[in-house]
Amino acid sequence: MKSGGRAGFEEWLEHLAALAPALRVQYWEDADPAAVDYALVWDPEPGRLAAMPGLRCIFGAGAGVDLITRDPDFPRHIPLVRMTPPGAAQRMGDYVCWAALHLLRQGRRMALSQARAVWEDFSCASAPDIRVGIMGLGVMGARAAAMLQGLGFPVHGWSRSEKRLPGVTDFVGEAALDDFLRVSDLVVCLLPDTLATQGILGTALFARLPRGALLINAGRGRQQILPDILAALDEGQLGGAVLDVFDPEPLAADDPAWGHPLLTITPHVASLPPRRERAAWVAGCIAGIEAGHWPEKVYNPGLGY
Amino acid sequence: MKSGGRAGFEEWLEHLAALAPALRVQYWEDADPAAVDYALVWDPEPGRLAAMPGLRCIFGAGAGVDLITRDPDFPRHIPLVRMTPPGAAQRMGDYVCWAALHLLRQGRRMALSQARAVWEDFSCASAPDIRVGIMGLGVMGARAAAMLQGLGFPVHGWSRSEKRLPGVTDFVGEAALDDFLRVSDLVVCLLPDTLATQGILGTALFARLPRGALLINAGRGRQQILPDILAALDEGQLGGAVLDVFDPEPLAADDPAWGHPLLTITPHVASLPPRRERAAWVAGCIAGIEAGHWPEKVYNPGLGY
Repeated sequence: MKSGGRAGFEEWLEHLAALAPALRVQYWEDADPAAVDYALVWDPEPGRLAAMPGLRCIFGAGAGVDLITRDPDFPRHIPLVRMTPPGAAQRMGDYVCWAALHLLRQGRRMALSQARAVWEDFSCASAPDIRVGIMGLGVMGARAAAMLQGLGFPVHGWSRSEKRLPGVTDFVGEAALDDFLRVSDLVVCLLPDTLATQGILGTALFARLPRGALLINAGRGRQQILPDILAALDEGQLGGAVLDVFDPEPLAADDPAWGHPLLTITPHVASLPPRRERAAWVAGCIAGIEAGHWPEKVYNPGLGY
Repeated sequence: MKSGGRAGFEEWLEHLAALAPALRVQYWEDADPAAVDYALVWDPEPGRLAAMPGLRCIFGAGAGVDLITRDPDFPRHIPLVRMTPPGAAQRMGDYVCWAALHLLRQGRRMALSQARAVWEDFSCASAPDIRVGIMGLGVMGARAAAMLQGLGFPVHGWSRSEKRLPGVTDFVGEAALDDFLRVSDLVVCLLPDTLATQGILGTALFARLPRGALLINAGRGRQQILPDILAALDEGQLGGAVLDVFDPEPLAADDPAWGHPLLTITPHVASLPPRRERAAWVAGCIAGIEAGHWPEKVYNPGLGY
């Protein structure tokens, strides 16, 4: 196991010992590679997984597995299961709705006013005025779409393969991206990290949005070009942004992004379940695999997620 | 007309001139009291309304009319219409959902971390874990309840007379307040400002909530005892609060509330529609009254709202 270092391991151990006392749980560096059946990892050192001949299954400690699959020696014949406990989509929906309302109600502006003890009232748009476009309509995008609709936002989506969600117009594939962007007052990026999505959130894409559009990225840091976002905010093409992901993480303490008055930074927490919930899900998956039932969210190397 | 001073008046005038060119619109101090048919006011000087013998109707510039009815000479025989344009309930719902998610996702903590350029990640509860209790189930409370349910929050309410809203258990009257509070992890105050609700949000009420409960007040400032809120936050009985209203307003620049790390302050903006929308609604009401159709939301002196 390698996720969260030694301190993180102690927490995983405590929860797994309570949930599945029969499992023998060891820290990465303490285990005999030949004796490992299951590995739980976030950003393993290259080559380590390949050195485990008896490995039956790899668990990613987060929904994204790009830090695992970037290892050139990643053992592609071993099933890689993405961390998708039942509450993960809801939690992402909580975050996306918070971020959407935060942009709508200008939460960053209010926080800066509070910091200066200044009473500055203003009126703003309402949810039905803002057309939300979600890039990526997987499990998380679908839940976010339903929750945003419940708030009164008109919602549409963009996806690689067609998704049929109630009340959500889906723009499918590269050819439909322009039409998708043209009607997106607020763009929510929930795309998986693949070669095709790297750097997608940059100047060229922002130019195709309505002027003053809003941006939320809860996908992956490599999908955004941070200097482009800062420039678009300065120039007015973007009216505000909430970013949960960066490349690299954590964001450097001296990065100018921290202080931008139209940018809200959150530390990759969008869909992070408490470790207890993640441990329960892993324990449940292992019990299922031992009984012959594989979890659904297995990494597909062909798709890249 | 008296709402927003001379500068505010110029904005009202511009919108009303465009929407209802036949109306003769004058600033409060410029009008002949004997010639006024309709008055639009937020906090009129005591006695001024009583000096208008031909007054047919008074419009409040906000949903609350307590700053109008506190005038001892307020002419009670003249209908007083509360500002409730169609979008007002949705706008309040936007605000309440933002505030609820802001407390859930610890938006204040993240804003303070961003201000120090500190990357501090943490996991937190999810909407289905937090039982929301809404005090006041009028038009605004009902819309907020539906939107909160759409986010996955379990929602119940407390009201003077029984309200039947889908999926919302209603606790009715003073006798049910204890039972209501006991199951409220997050309390949302949307009560009207009456003698019975003044000072209700204080230490005695907080003590009946689950430890670490969260508070949103988007009702009226007189309903809360601000030093009690700060003490409950310091002591841990309250885990966080978002306050949109104060007494008096604006909140004094040297008030210690501004700097509290668990308290988010917003400047009475919860359901403030843009002036254009409010002007359109007033113009529509006047056209209706002239045609014999009175608006629904007329102040009831017996109820106090």
